[in-house]
Amino acid sequence: MTRPAVVLLSGGLDSATIAAIARRDGYTVFALSFDYGQRHDVEIQAARRVAAAAGAKRHVVLPIDLRAFGGSALTDDIPVPKGRSEDDMAAGIPVTYVPARNTIFLSLALAWAEVLGTGDIFIGVNARDYSGYPDCRPDYLAAFQAMANLATKGAVEGTLPVTIHNPLIDLTKGEIITLGTGLGVDYSLTRSCYDPDSHGRACGACDSCALRLKGFAEAGFADPAPYQA
Amino acid sequence: MTRPAVVLLSGGLDSATIAAIARRDGYTVFALSFDYGQRHDVEIQAARRVAAAAGAKRHVVLPIDLRAFGGSALTDDIPVPKGRSEDDMAAGIPVTYVPARNTIFLSLALAWAEVLGTGDIFIGVNARDYSGYPDCRPDYLAAFQAMANLATKGAVEGTLPVTIHNPLIDLTKGEIITLGTGLGVDYSLTRSCYDPDSHGRACGACDSCALRLKGFAEAGFADPAPYQA
Repeated sequence: MTRPAVVLLSGGLDSATIAAIARRDGYTVFALSFDYGQRHDVEIQAARRVAAAAGAKRHVVLPIDLRAFGGSALTDDIPVPKGRSEDDMAAGIPVTYVPARNTIFLSLALAWAEVLGTGDIFIGVNARDYSGYPDCRPDYLAAFQAMANLATKGAVEGTLPVTIHNPLIDLTKGEIITLGTGLGVDYSLTRSCYDPDSHGRACGACDSCALRLKGFAEAGFADPAPYQA
Repeated sequence: MTRPAVVLLSGGLDSATIAAIARRDGYTVFALSFDYGQRHDVEIQAARRVAAAAGAKRHVVLPIDLRAFGGSALTDDIPVPKGRSEDDMAAGIPVTYVPARNTIFLSLALAWAEVLGTGDIFIGVNARDYSGYPDCRPDYLAAFQAMANLATKGAVEGTLPVTIHNPLIDLTKGEIITLGTGLGVDYSLTRSCYDPDSHGRACGACDSCALRLKGFAEAGFADPAPYQA
């Protein structure tokens, strides 16, 4: 087995792309997803498909009930905003914000990485299309990496320095799709919608769908994932 | 209600002491404990008693199945070491180490703090008696705080700066017990043992019992918690 890497996998197109990048770079992929009280399990089904397609050696779907704390459209019953312009999205942090989400996900990835004997963690965050999330910015990721290098036995002993790989950080959604397509990613397996129907078909109108559709338009081909009529 | 603070509460004597300190300092205590696949629930029962005694407004016990990753005596079936000297304990990181534990706990505390509209988090870590855990050192806690201040909406907007309060960091166990006793902490409610019996009685021989017993000896009185005969 090549060097292991923990790859945070939401089932969206960014995470499918980083799994392909980790594999291209010679890592054995250990995929980590979370069931954090979403209103539907479309995302988790997509993560399972993407992990299998990426040749993951193991895929852990860890339940964490963030509903115990409340505070977000993705975990509570607040309506998901639809049809917002890019200016609206850029104007502030959306109600779909989950407090400390990437910090929680990276912390759990860090635990698994140490058990696997590695310090390599891949996350598919993106500063250009981040839609107002503070924990998707480069300075946040650098601070997490600095903290992580003081947090674990392997890092402190110098044997397992922690690297938070974020290869998509400066790319547009269109560039991400073009890169992934070149690596053989099948984007029909992925899902991004905040408000899919019971068949897993995307709404086409939430912030996440809007960014995704713009990305496929930039990349110059149609999104192969299913949308509601 | 006074300003809320999230207090990480294990049910041990350090966490009972910080809950009392948070209350003394005028905070409304929101207690957070974790059920992370321990081999027994003595610790959680102790946390419930301590939260009630500290007047916590709410106590969340969040399940997180760290057994999904493996890697520690506290979550796997590796025997807990007994009868080690202080030199043995100081010589390295013990097998009771849980990878990234404080990072995971602090990350979840951060999420709840933001939902509660606060940046104040209390953790009872201790650099003197830390028994080899890297995530109990001051430089680790400072790095976590720096990261947290880039991670959340409240911190980034400047309304909820994050402070990781660690009032026990430089105290000996004896000093902690003396301080807590002065604040009215009832240490008979707390449990520290890594390997209690089915009645919740401490073994008296694991690293955690050894540190606790030394602390009570320093403080000059007997531990009121129950021990096996």
